[in-house]
Amino acid sequence: MSAYDARMSDPNPYRVENCSIERTLAVLGEKWTWLVLREAFNGVRRFADIQAGTRAPRQVLSARLARLVDEGLLRKVPYREPGRRQRDEYRLTQKGLDLYPIMVSLMHWGDRYMADPAGPPVVLTHRDCGSPIDVHLRCDDAHEVPSPREVTPRLGPGARLAGQSAREVSASVRPGAPA
Amino acid sequence: MSAYDARMSDPNPYRVENCSIERTLAVLGEKWTWLVLREAFNGVRRFADIQAGTRAPRQVLSARLARLVDEGLLRKVPYREPGRRQRDEYRLTQKGLDLYPIMVSLMHWGDRYMADPAGPPVVLTHRDCGSPIDVHLRCDDAHEVPSPREVTPRLGPGARLAGQSAREVSASVRPGAPA
Repeated sequence: MSAYDARMSDPNPYRVENCSIERTLAVLGEKWTWLVLREAFNGVRRFADIQAGTRAPRQVLSARLARLVDEGLLRKVPYREPGRRQRDEYRLTQKGLDLYPIMVSLMHWGDRYMADPAGPPVVLTHRDCGSPIDVHLRCDDAHEVPSPREVTPRLGPGARLAGQSAREVSASVRPGAPA
Repeated sequence: MSAYDARMSDPNPYRVENCSIERTLAVLGEKWTWLVLREAFNGVRRFADIQAGTRAPRQVLSARLARLVDEGLLRKVPYREPGRRQRDEYRLTQKGLDLYPIMVSLMHWGDRYMADPAGPPVVLTHRDCGSPIDVHLRCDDAHEVPSPREVTPRLGPGARLAGQSAREVSASVRPGAPA
């Protein structure tokens, strides 16, 4: 079977070697990492406080924080309390802040399907008007897209298919294709 | 230190015992689970195809599929190919379909920070008009909320704080509080 035949018989014609979901999960596909980031989004910056908030084992927490710093999602900022040695606190970078829609989506799905009967434990509201916020899918033509059934995937400019080199991809991409 | 003092000295006043993010991660905090769901959203329904698409070890895949069925995210539907025994395929339930904003957010963050220089491998477009879709945060008053800095968390009707019973929570919730 040729690579072409293999692709045509694949039930998923959008299967790529360089899947963005898979790459995100390589950094973020682990429960403790998300709990550390939850703390960061709640303004919790210091090791002992993050540990108290996540209940992560100390060594797990150290490893996750180091990885998040290595990946540029958190940055270390030194601080010193009176009479104590200097330590680092952890703050979200822009790359980390950009995880916010994922965090909100995880939370809202949990609110819908996993919350106690009394309702969601925390409600995220718009600072300026106080109304609850929600996640919406919308297209660049300003249409609401409420369901995955209204979404069509297309191969993008960086698509690298099974058995295809990066060089072949760049040669086959139409110049000026939207990135 | 009383429970009240402990709460006031906690750097995160929204720390709850029944966090929706944590509950979601208890089901979905693992890389293979998301890759199985990615396949499902791409219409891949059969064990061998899901295995080919995720490259998950067979036993890992069996365990993840069983868990997703138990949790009501996938349902099994029998099928039979000519001359073969009956098997099950796996389809997303509504509960599973409602994970779509999380999936899109994971993908778009990866597109932004992890993609090859040529650009995103797959682009999600609106079926009706062809424009790319994106995830937006918006409040119920129709304001766009582009940054987590514009979001204020509040304790919700189901908030259960450390050391507080569910009974105390329901007694302290204002009737008619937004769910």
